[in-house]
Formats: sequence, structure tokens, C-alpha cells
Amino acid sequence: MKVIHTGDWHLGKILNGKSLLEDQAYILDQFINSMHNEQPDVIVIAGDLYDTSYPNKEAIQLLEKTINKLNLEMHIPLIIISGNHDGKERLDYGSRWFERSQFYIRTRLEDMNKPISINGIDFYTMPFATINEIQDYFSDDSITTHQQAVSKCLKYIQQSINNENINILIGHLTVQGGIRSESERPLTIGTVESVEEDTFNMFDKVMLGHLHHPFSINSDFINYSGSLLQYSFSEVNQAKGYRRVEIEEHQIKDQFIPLKPRRELEVVEGDYEDAIHERLAIKNKENYLHFKLKHMSHVTDPMMHLKQIYKNTLALTNQSFEFNTSIYQSDEEIQKFEDETIIKKFYEEITDETLTSAQNDKLNYILNDFLNGGDA
Amino acid sequence: MKVIHTGDWHLGKILNGKSLLEDQAYILDQFINSMHNEQPDVIVIAGDLYDTSYPNKEAIQLLEKTINKLNLEMHIPLIIISGNHDGKERLDYGSRWFERSQFYIRTRLEDMNKPISINGIDFYTMPFATINEIQDYFSDDSITTHQQAVSKCLKYIQQSINNENINILIGHLTVQGGIRSESERPLTIGTVESVEEDTFNMFDKVMLGHLHHPFSINSDFINYSGSLLQYSFSEVNQAKGYRRVEIEEHQIKDQFIPLKPRRELEVVEGDYEDAIHERLAIKNKENYLHFKLKHMSHVTDPMMHLKQIYKNTLALTNQSFEFNTSIYQSDEEIQKFEDETIIKKFYEEITDETLTSAQNDKLNYILNDFLNGGDA
Repeated sequence: MKVIHTGDWHLGKILNGKSLLEDQAYILDQFINSMHNEQPDVIVIAGDLYDTSYPNKEAIQLLEKTINKLNLEMHIPLIIISGNHDGKERLDYGSRWFERSQFYIRTRLEDMNKPISINGIDFYTMPFATINEIQDYFSDDSITTHQQAVSKCLKYIQQSINNENINILIGHLTVQGGIRSESERPLTIGTVESVEEDTFNMFDKVMLGHLHHPFSINSDFINYSGSLLQYSFSEVNQAKGYRRVEIEEHQIKDQFIPLKPRRELEVVEGDYEDAIHERLAIKNKENYLHFKLKHMSHVTDPMMHLKQIYKNTLALTNQSFEFNTSIYQSDEEIQKFEDETIIKKFYEEITDETLTSAQNDKLNYILNDFLNGGDA
Repeated sequence: MKVIHTGDWHLGKILNGKSLLEDQAYILDQFINSMHNEQPDVIVIAGDLYDTSYPNKEAIQLLEKTINKLNLEMHIPLIIISGNHDGKERLDYGSRWFERSQFYIRTRLEDMNKPISINGIDFYTMPFATINEIQDYFSDDSITTHQQAVSKCLKYIQQSINNENINILIGHLTVQGGIRSESERPLTIGTVESVEEDTFNMFDKVMLGHLHHPFSINSDFINYSGSLLQYSFSEVNQAKGYRRVEIEEHQIKDQFIPLKPRRELEVVEGDYEDAIHERLAIKNKENYLHFKLKHMSHVTDPMMHLKQIYKNTLALTNQSFEFNTSIYQSDEEIQKFEDETIIKKFYEEITDETLTSAQNDKLNYILNDFLNGGDA
């Protein structure tokens, strides 16, 4: 029995104003090709299929095209749950017809204790739900944390679980100690969102979505698939792919299989002049780039100049600012300077130039005559 | 062979700020009940299932629930085309799975010459397309009118049609002479949108959507189903329902079957005081009402007062204005009056009061002293 575990596709994602749909279509083609070789018994997609609850029509078409190939053309059963980015009602649309082809979409808490059985293995689904939704579902106001909410759900599932079987949980949540990325939207604001690992002990295997790092957690039975692509510059150099889970008797093997994207995210540091004259080492000019550059404050619209050479430049940070902060170690040191000195040093750091004599006169006038009320 | 013809459901429609979803759910329940009795061989929905290309989740759920009952529970084949209000890509989502249960969604010009055969009858589909889309599809810039566009499509269909069969066209367009309603969005701006009746002669039957009046056109083979509900006050007193089309040998019978909605649209004319004291004849206090009232200019926020009694009041017109226009038959008559007389008469008409002596003095001052430059 072979199960493929993927998740966090975030179709329709826009990163710094750039739609990643083309890259998503490319990587999904790679995924489909791999599935031709893998010939899995089922594919699990653990939530966040879309990046937004109002996906645009291109994202919808890409999902449908991909799922159509996997399910109707290649006849692979699919289990999908909704994540915190998905609109449940929209994702669920058509599910009653889809089930007839073993394409299962689960978005409702009502279904969590009804496993989907494939080749004798029971897949339980816990789509993303807010603490409030779980409170409402169990009519239990005492649930105020994710830990309590998930424990409640699992205790409920436990009543109907068959321990003789291999039981797999599919969820979209944060396990304690999991490594975060910037592209994950918090599940709630102001509450600890993580759930302890041993909460899930009743399962032989837990296939999760939400955290984007494929090795987010170090556990022998809980795994994140990781996201389809690098979705923030905090994920630079992070491999992305899917997990191949092989189950034989009660032995479960889990292996991460990387996929090669069309473009990666890359951070490039150095001097502006070196960047613009292509003297900086860049892995792939087509990559989505975040430049962190020094000595560029004299340039008008440096982003435009960079984009003329590196068209997929998505971000630019003026590294001089960070340099500044290392000169002055604390506010106290700065306060030792005269106002005039602070302004002059600031100007020099930012522009790499000193004040002209006209600027000097103006500064004197403002500081001495105007602000301090002295006579001209 | 029994075919049910419906269309222009406009799910998610908002009329004067009021969502009609509850009424739409009610009437669709009636429709489903009727289908239990009718036991049709197929149901045709001729476009505009949604009111907008971005339907909200409640509208999506209502469509899915309705279609689920008709198709999966009652096992009735369905043919749906997209109208000018529908977003093709969204409506089409899932269609490959749906077709396996004889639920056919057609949104593409590519499919227009591929009939759906049910019980030996060929259903051709012509989803709504703009003139530009049809130009592009045929790579023919000479197409500049709806007449040319539809003729081109039908000539293309004609190449593959089997005249031995009974051939039915399902379309979403305007036939010449069709009665319009205010709730239909024009297909194009600035172009005649109607198509001549004899363009369709190759078909035994044409089932149309777009015009909301179920008797929009007087033809022996072309029919509009009419909309699911009254969607504008221009449709007051208009029956709404579906068409039952019975085909035996080459005999085709078509009959309009009305459904009873939860609320209708109703226009109420009279005096404001009579309305507010419930002295006006109103068919149903729950109806969506458009009041056209006289003698209300002295009232602050009359709409609020009316809504306290008639909670589904959607529109209010001050009828006094229209009354005025009937007093003065032409501009010329008005010009015979002195300025002072015109102003006094206008004030009296609007407020049902005469000017106070202070107002009279002010008017005199403005007209004689200020405007005409006389001395005070």
C-alpha cells in the first residue's frame, strides 16, 4: 500500500505582487509525472489547496485540471481536507459527485469520526476548524485552546476507532516544536496554536498540512508534507516535494521526495554596483530574487534598474540601514552626539556623501536659529 | 419523453439591497416537489444560474443542494448552459465528474456541435458568448452583430446535425420581438442584441434563457422559460414557473406551469396617510413592495415609517412629482406663468401647504429686489 502525502498547495498565491500560478502549474506537472511512476493507492492533500477563500478562476481551473488528471484519468483515489486558507463551502462544492470516483473532499467536523477506508486502512479527517467552531460543534464553552480543541476531537474519534486496523489521521494544524515559515497565516491571533505530539498517539500515522517546512517536526509517526513551493523568503534553500508513505503489515516507512521547481526563491547580498553589473553570484537569473544591497541610496528607483536585468526581482532591502544600526550600539551612544552630528552622520550613511556647504548652512539655521529661537 | 425547461434562476440576486436567497430556496423546493410529480426525462436550465460571476457561498450551496436532489437523489439528467450573468469557469468546475451522472454543464463554444443525446433526442447547447468571443472562435472579424454571430454558430452546427432526429437547441439570447424586463442585463451596449426567429428554423424546438417573461415571444417552436422569480418591479403580476415539453413522435407540446412563490413583487399606489394607516389594499403584507405615494413630502424618513408596518418595502416613489407633470402639459404653458406663480404652485404641489407670509416676503425679496436688482 502506497500513500502519497502532499499539502499546502496555496494555488493562486501572490508573492510581493507576483502571481505564482505559472510556477504552480509547472510543479503540478512534475507532481503528475511522478505519480505516473509512483502509481500510488491514494493521494492525501492535507489542506490549503487554495491561498484564499475566494480563489480566482485561473486557480480554480488549475486545481480542477490537476485533480482531473490524477483522479479521472489516472484513477487514483484522492482525499482532500480544507485548511485555514480554504473556503470550506467553495472547496466542498461538487463533493457528492466526486466521491463516486473516490475523490473525497472533507471540510466538515461532522465527518471526522467517519473514516474513509482504502485497502483496509482507515483514514480519519480533521479539516481545519477554529476554536469557536469546535466549541460550537461540541456545545462546550470550556474549550479555549487549540490543545483542548484537538484533544476533544480526537477523544470523539476514539469512540469509533478500530484499533485492530491501521489508522491514519489527516489534519491541518501545528504540532508543538514545529518549525514555522513566514508564509503560514497564524491559525488564531493571541493563542498558542500548537498541540502536543502525544495527543495523537492513537494513530499509526499523522499526515499534516499547515507548516511549510517538510521537516518541520522530528517525530517517528507525525509528518508535514511541506508546501508545494517556497512561499516566503524565509523558505530559501528549503526543498519542496511530497512524502511517499509505504505501509506493509504494521510497518510504515515515510520518505520525502523532492521536486524540481521552475524557479526558486533566492536572497542575493552585496553591493548595488556589483548587482547591476552582474558581478554577484546568482544561482539562477530566472529565480525570484530578494536583493539586500549596500551603497544604493544615490540611485533613483533601484528596483526598476534591477528588474531590467533580473526580471523576477521581488524584493529589495537597503542594507546600509542595517549597517547603521551596527555603528550605534544603543540609543545611549547616539544621545552623546550633538543633534548636528547625528543628522550629518545619518546623511552620510544613507547617501555616501557629505553635506554641501549650502546644506550645512540650512541645517545650522534650522537647529540654531529656528528651533532654538536664536537671532539670525 | 418529457423535458422540463427552466432558466434565469439568478441565485444570489440582491434586489434594492435585499437578498432574495430565502425566496429562491423556497421556490426551488417547490420546483423539486413538482419534479417528483413530473418525473421528467431531462431538465434543461437555459443559463443565468447565478446572478453574478462571483456568487457568494450561500448561492453556491443552494445550487449544489438543488442539483444534488434532482440529479443524484432523483436521478434526473440535467443540461445546464452558462448565461451572460454566469462566470463560465466557475460554473464549469467539476463538470467532468458531473457528466458521469448525466449532469451536463456546457459553457464552451467548442462543444456546440456536439449534441447531448437523451432518449434519441439531440440537445445542442449554445452558452452565452459575446460577439468578440464568437469572432475569436471562428477567426472572423466580419462578425459584428448578434444576428451574424448566432447565424455563424448555427451554420457551424448545421454541418453535423442529423435532420432525421429531433433536434433541440438550448441558448441564452434575445429573439427579435421578445418582451424585455428591467432585470435583464443587456448582452452588449450599443448593439442590437436580437436575432431573427427564422435563424433557428433547423431546430424542432428552441429552449431559451435571458428574457425573464415566460411569454416573451409568440412562436410555435421557440420559448423562454422565464425567470425563477420576479426580479424587477417591471415583472409585477407576471407568472413565474417552468415549461413542460412533451415530445411524442414528431409532435412537440409545450406548456407553461406556474409555481407559487413565497413572496411576490407588488406596487402599491395611494396616499401616504392611507398607507401608514393600512387603508390601502395590499395583496400580501409580506410581499416585496414598491410604494408610489402622494402627500408625503412633509414626512421625515417616510421609508422608515413604511418599513415598520411593511417590512419588505423595497422602494418608495414620491408620486406628487409625477402628478405635477400632468398639471403642466408643456413647457410652454409653464412659461405663461410669472416666476412667483410657478414657485408658489410648485411648493403647494410638493408640500400640500401654501407659503407662509414670511416665506412670501422672502420670495418677493429674492425675485424682485435681489434677482431683478430693485431697491429694497
